[in-house]
Amino acid sequence: MNTEKTSNPYRLYLVTDDQQDLDTLKNVVSEAVAGGVTMVQVREKHGDVRAFIERAKAVKMILAGTGVPLIINDRVDVALAVDADGVHLGQSDMPADIARDLIGPDKLLGLSIETEAQLEEADNLPVDYLGLSAIFATPTKTNTKKEWGIEGLRKAVEQSGYPIVAIGGINTSNLDEVMATRLAGVALVSAICHAESPKRAAEEILAQMNRTD
Amino acid sequence: MNTEKTSNPYRLYLVTDDQQDLDTLKNVVSEAVAGGVTMVQVREKHGDVRAFIERAKAVKMILAGTGVPLIINDRVDVALAVDADGVHLGQSDMPADIARDLIGPDKLLGLSIETEAQLEEADNLPVDYLGLSAIFATPTKTNTKKEWGIEGLRKAVEQSGYPIVAIGGINTSNLDEVMATRLAGVALVSAICHAESPKRAAEEILAQMNRTD
Repeated sequence: MNTEKTSNPYRLYLVTDDQQDLDTLKNVVSEAVAGGVTMVQVREKHGDVRAFIERAKAVKMILAGTGVPLIINDRVDVALAVDADGVHLGQSDMPADIARDLIGPDKLLGLSIETEAQLEEADNLPVDYLGLSAIFATPTKTNTKKEWGIEGLRKAVEQSGYPIVAIGGINTSNLDEVMATRLAGVALVSAICHAESPKRAAEEILAQMNRTD
Repeated sequence: MNTEKTSNPYRLYLVTDDQQDLDTLKNVVSEAVAGGVTMVQVREKHGDVRAFIERAKAVKMILAGTGVPLIINDRVDVALAVDADGVHLGQSDMPADIARDLIGPDKLLGLSIETEAQLEEADNLPVDYLGLSAIFATPTKTNTKKEWGIEGLRKAVEQSGYPIVAIGGINTSNLDEVMATRLAGVALVSAICHAESPKRAAEEILAQMNRTD
């Protein structure tokens, strides 16, 4: 695996928008990687599996040789099919221990956390990182149970032994206070996928992160 | 694998109804196996993956030691997670060659066929059997492209080198003409799952099949 865990792959984590067509997806990922994103998750909630595989393969080709890991949302079989670097699971997806058995010990395994109970339960699961969702209200996901807010995020980072990635409603206007919680990284959909220049958006976010470190 | 291919596992193929709750599912499968069904496919189109795995595991326990293979619809990862005997793919599911790579050479792989073009294309795919869908109009699946009818089924059986399983609207009233096409077997949802006694339904269908052989 090409993950370079030492360089913190979680710092700026791009999650793709399944509403964007294949050409737009490829353009967004290419630009975002040029702009410095450190990990890419392909998330497909509405398409069929063939389209999911096609899109994952396209992203994998863009990431080849960059050292940026490719993570597949939910579908362990798609991750295996494209030999991705990892899988990200939601709470109603495959249980983490089964997914770990299927992908093996060397792949990255992430888990979405929406409640304090899930955060505690994760202590005993074979995962590599947690995605705290959602930090703020967001139009991308409307089915989340709560919003963590800055204080909830800060407590979770203190409480958990895992790298914490924050997702949901994060943008340049709230990035400073998000980074101040000392989390491992932020995951973004809209702020990069819907930017006029995904490359410049990634660069600006990273520059802002570096100023607050 | 416990498949006993020599005894034709396709003869009476039960496909579960994902609208039935877990207890009903277990009862239907237990009765259907007692009644003589030769293969069981767990199909879940609406539930989440955790529920799918739970239901597949429950069916696997019922089938243990019976020699009746367990087939998982669509989700190769679920099939791997429960170590099922095979996978059944639709045309928008994972491509058959990728699924074959993931499940290995010894598992059963089935593919739904809805058009003549798909029937021809299947000649070059690493599958074990084809499910011709739908033979007649059916309330279970409303998104099928056409109905094959008896003549279409007969031609497909003659044309294809694979065992053909017919699915969609088959019941005791049309079973004789379906069997007369010399197909490998019939797949049933409603005729068994919604029967007052799934055991007696399976027994009666098999008895009718035996009379027409």
